[in-house]
Amino acid sequence: MSKKDLQRAKGVRDFSPQDKLSRNKIVNILRSIFELYGYNPIETPILERYETFASKYGIGQESDAMKETFKLQDQGKRDLVLRTEFTVPFARFVGMNSQLKMPFKRYQMGSVFRDGPIKLGRYREFWQCDVDVVGVSKMTIDAELVDLTKTVFNKLDLDIEIQINNRILLNEILNKASIKEKDQESVIISIDKLEKIGADGVKQELVQKDISSDQVDAVLALINISGSNDDKIKLLEKELGDSEGLTKIKEVINLIDNENVNFIPSLARGLAYYTGTIFEVFLKDTSKLNSSLAGGGRYDDMIGGFLDRNEQVPAVGISFGLETIYDALQLAKSDIVKGVSTAQIYVSTIGKGLEKEALKIARKLRQNNIKTDVDLQGKNLRKNLDYADSYKIPWVLILGEDEIKQDKYTLKNMTSGDQFSLKLPEILNKIK
Amino acid sequence: MSKKDLQRAKGVRDFSPQDKLSRNKIVNILRSIFELYGYNPIETPILERYETFASKYGIGQESDAMKETFKLQDQGKRDLVLRTEFTVPFARFVGMNSQLKMPFKRYQMGSVFRDGPIKLGRYREFWQCDVDVVGVSKMTIDAELVDLTKTVFNKLDLDIEIQINNRILLNEILNKASIKEKDQESVIISIDKLEKIGADGVKQELVQKDISSDQVDAVLALINISGSNDDKIKLLEKELGDSEGLTKIKEVINLIDNENVNFIPSLARGLAYYTGTIFEVFLKDTSKLNSSLAGGGRYDDMIGGFLDRNEQVPAVGISFGLETIYDALQLAKSDIVKGVSTAQIYVSTIGKGLEKEALKIARKLRQNNIKTDVDLQGKNLRKNLDYADSYKIPWVLILGEDEIKQDKYTLKNMTSGDQFSLKLPEILNKIK
Repeated sequence: MSKKDLQRAKGVRDFSPQDKLSRNKIVNILRSIFELYGYNPIETPILERYETFASKYGIGQESDAMKETFKLQDQGKRDLVLRTEFTVPFARFVGMNSQLKMPFKRYQMGSVFRDGPIKLGRYREFWQCDVDVVGVSKMTIDAELVDLTKTVFNKLDLDIEIQINNRILLNEILNKASIKEKDQESVIISIDKLEKIGADGVKQELVQKDISSDQVDAVLALINISGSNDDKIKLLEKELGDSEGLTKIKEVINLIDNENVNFIPSLARGLAYYTGTIFEVFLKDTSKLNSSLAGGGRYDDMIGGFLDRNEQVPAVGISFGLETIYDALQLAKSDIVKGVSTAQIYVSTIGKGLEKEALKIARKLRQNNIKTDVDLQGKNLRKNLDYADSYKIPWVLILGEDEIKQDKYTLKNMTSGDQFSLKLPEILNKIK
Repeated sequence: MSKKDLQRAKGVRDFSPQDKLSRNKIVNILRSIFELYGYNPIETPILERYETFASKYGIGQESDAMKETFKLQDQGKRDLVLRTEFTVPFARFVGMNSQLKMPFKRYQMGSVFRDGPIKLGRYREFWQCDVDVVGVSKMTIDAELVDLTKTVFNKLDLDIEIQINNRILLNEILNKASIKEKDQESVIISIDKLEKIGADGVKQELVQKDISSDQVDAVLALINISGSNDDKIKLLEKELGDSEGLTKIKEVINLIDNENVNFIPSLARGLAYYTGTIFEVFLKDTSKLNSSLAGGGRYDDMIGGFLDRNEQVPAVGISFGLETIYDALQLAKSDIVKGVSTAQIYVSTIGKGLEKEALKIARKLRQNNIKTDVDLQGKNLRKNLDYADSYKIPWVLILGEDEIKQDKYTLKNMTSGDQFSLKLPEILNKIK
């Protein structure tokens, strides 16, 4: 294999130590907040049966998402897929575990896959970090998820807006405007673009879809509205009267701190499995990055569907995208994604044949819980300082014959260049 | 989809919260020790090109490992595989990143895949946790890996034996016994079984492979030996004279604490890519579990091969198997794999309509970094205590109208059953 043949599969990435350490930091922050809210981790496999995802309660055989799903077979010719998301496997998991005490609150983080076109910021293998709750139909839990989301982005120090809506409300609005049931799905796809393409753009799309100008105006009058969340609720209450969707949105909004939460009646989110509240999170300043950082909603029909039950099994969740959060942190020049090193100190020898002594010192440092790298090749000092510098290791301990005799070592601060001659306990103190 | 159709893909598993929390604990211990030794994390993708693994410097097109590799195509009809291990992707990564400062020390943890028969303890998707170093040919780094391995199992509190050998030595032994080069691979496969099937078993296999009885005796005289590591080295030195393999083994053994390290001249390990030191770790008491907990070795030819260079690019690593370590900890009844809960406290209401108050108390607990779950459905107290019990949450805070008025809450210890009436700061103190 020649070097030019040495390549990755199309659309996937390698993460170098600096990237991976940053990604680990983000994942650890998400994990700590998920656990702070009492969510437990589970792990479902990357390989799932084709039938699970293709089910009409999954992402559906005919969906675009299914077309972009990696398909494979095992040696027994069983049809498999690589998971494209965590919600369908979670529904399968809940369906298979009837002993689970409800409500069941879980988080899952890891790789998901899509066999689609490669665009900027779109990969074939990427990480998602999901929290979901099954077994609560009350809006209190939808409110908890908004609260959790705010805590996550507060901890990440990112200025965000949480957009919120309810699918039931969206259908009520379309009914009010006399949009036929068969057209509603297609109309929803257009009005979801309101924030991006504006009222004129939406109007143009809807007219092309053979929706009458009066109907379009009636829809826009209800979704293209501004003001505070309360203003918008009051306006819609006047227009719609008794509304299940609006009641649910009000319940959520009354339970949360409304700062940075924006009720957007045109918000739809693509996936057909949502049945109630929907969320989407963007940077407040979308001029540099307008991809969503997190998104989710209620899917009360999916799990009951998997179980072949007529009853609803209520469920709601939100998915955080590691890739866009990483990009947002880079734009914000956050410390979280700044280059870091694992090792706190690097042990370098001067002179030959001191590897055993170097290993001994390294062992002592490690016993004191100091992350330690050590030269095991007997390189010269210049090369060793060069190495420590390139891995951004902050301290170098230098030992030669004299140092060993005196039991006193040279400690070099790689940032300031300062050098000290110290005994090991003093070195331990300085680094801690 | 009816419930009986609701199933996982064959040979893969779901991990419930209790399992996943235990697995996370093991992974965190491994990560902390890898970082203590100055190793940095990287992440390579799960999807790799077919050619990378099928390369003769990978696992080879004709190998059994390649037959048990999941193969798939993307929409562009490119041939892909799911990685079966981390060493080949690591070699590819190093080959593609010529700017890496040597030595490069990395760890990687995650899922790997094999499309093979399902046996007890063998799965199609499982975790490996690897540490590798590239760029050091000296045995000092092989010694460091033994030291790291001892630290890992010390931290896990598992009684293990590290078996060690060198592939060069194995070839020297076979040459000394005049085993023809073409037979050596096959003979190595048989002698690797010495510990399992004994000298008679090995002899029987080798005679069936048309190795002469004299040759078999000559091999066994050199590998079926006992005593301390030093005893075995002295015996082999006498028989072999000048030996590169023995010199290297001596170098490693002189650098490490030999407790629980066992030089076993018959140890081979299957994979053809090893070129020097090989390691394998077992429980000391193999009566209940005789699968290896970790294994690895030197593969000085692989990376140079990928780079199409004639020179060697020295590399050595060790892979820890999460599944067998988990099993070993369960056998040892270790606390690490004992049922745990994420939440430290559960907030329960008495009486209706107190969800907003419950959310408020939960928020205060979380602001104080206490992992908190909360009833958001207004369930009755019996059901709430039942829920806390089933998720092993150690404390329950109970609030009703009176408690809110008095700003004093009931705190119940779920283990002892004791109840206290306390103000929130007192509750915070008690839980911390």
